[in-house]
Amino acid sequence: MTLRSTKKAIVLLSGGLDSTTTLAIAKNQGYECYTLNFCYGQKHSAEVQAAKDIAQLYQVKRHELISLDLGRFGGSSLTDASMAIPDFVEKNYIPSTYVPARNTIFLSIALAWAETLQAYHIFFSANVVDYSGYPDCRPSYIESFERTANLATRDGTEGNQHFRIHAPLLHLSKTEIILLGTQLGVDYAPTVSCYRANEQGEACGSCDCCHYRRQGFSGANLPDPTRYALQGANTNKCQSY
Amino acid sequence: MTLRSTKKAIVLLSGGLDSTTTLAIAKNQGYECYTLNFCYGQKHSAEVQAAKDIAQLYQVKRHELISLDLGRFGGSSLTDASMAIPDFVEKNYIPSTYVPARNTIFLSIALAWAETLQAYHIFFSANVVDYSGYPDCRPSYIESFERTANLATRDGTEGNQHFRIHAPLLHLSKTEIILLGTQLGVDYAPTVSCYRANEQGEACGSCDCCHYRRQGFSGANLPDPTRYALQGANTNKCQSY
Repeated sequence: MTLRSTKKAIVLLSGGLDSTTTLAIAKNQGYECYTLNFCYGQKHSAEVQAAKDIAQLYQVKRHELISLDLGRFGGSSLTDASMAIPDFVEKNYIPSTYVPARNTIFLSIALAWAETLQAYHIFFSANVVDYSGYPDCRPSYIESFERTANLATRDGTEGNQHFRIHAPLLHLSKTEIILLGTQLGVDYAPTVSCYRANEQGEACGSCDCCHYRRQGFSGANLPDPTRYALQGANTNKCQSY
Repeated sequence: MTLRSTKKAIVLLSGGLDSTTTLAIAKNQGYECYTLNFCYGQKHSAEVQAAKDIAQLYQVKRHELISLDLGRFGGSSLTDASMAIPDFVEKNYIPSTYVPARNTIFLSIALAWAETLQAYHIFFSANVVDYSGYPDCRPSYIESFERTANLATRDGTEGNQHFRIHAPLLHLSKTEIILLGTQLGVDYAPTVSCYRANEQGEACGSCDCCHYRRQGFSGANLPDPTRYALQGANTNKCQSY
């Protein structure tokens, strides 16, 4: 890894395949990385532990976990106990796993930390290829958030600094992401992508995330290190750590 | 009050003078109101209780208090125990009470609830006149957030609905806000504006908020119902309710 810069970056790190690759990219580009994760009312906390482990593995400068109960609003099968997380199906609609305004909330909180740290680079793993149709993963959204972020902040407004939102995976397929991460030395074994992982981080094998992840490893012609659970669905609530 | 519409609105209600006036405006315009407040690490919780009381007084449909510890990031005298909240002085700089990205975070969380409720109107009490120079209170910021909000969401993207951010106080002086609120029947006695209020909701009398509030009542030639503390500064931390 070549240290080309000592600039600071906030990396949204959920503990999944995409965000771990994004962290590896930011590190590889020489950023001093601060990782941020959320316990937002999702149905399992395996990914929260995975994110902590991965942050440690990458020796990030600081890892923060913010608790915020979006489950109180409901409206998503990821946070609402009364809604089941669906199995993967081919679709041309936004699925029930969509969490209203989630990326906007996560990026806003990242922005708060970023301004405090004078970290003008925020990395997140939005993707428009093998993704589930979420509106807050599209380029037009990201550009608009970046503009808002600069108008919102002291440094973005008064200083010579400009906050930048980096989405290095935006146009890559899952296979391309895995190939890039592998090239950067990412070990995908500790990552947890599944929407219904159990507390041991074992995946259900049938949700959208499992589908795309499995397809990605298959396309890359690489062994899939995912641990699959014998019994899939898990309905534990993420607890604040 | 004339009921001209049954449309739903989220109103950011901090328990202060401005947000209470904003709630009165939304009610007067016939919106079914859902109020949202935050325990974000600010140094007192008197305003949190005030917001609850005011929400009840206005018989809002539902009042929500979201806990989110922005104090972990520091960087503002409102949330950082190591920084003192300053007394009012005439200034042309953004004061230490500025909380990085606060309005963006609050509006994002409001957006999450709004989309779940199919409430396409979000009211908040941004103001560019008697305000403290915060960048996230300016018209250009609000327009940009509204654009981002619509790109971020299912309903803003796919449906025929458009999320609107209302800032009805934007161009009013504190005196004009008080005169408008009084015309709408607002009782300002239970509102708490002070940055350093004690747990009884008594104001310090010398911070920016107290300065503008006092000036507002004076300009409106109305009795100031604010209860001032004999001892001002308070450093209790807002606790989640």
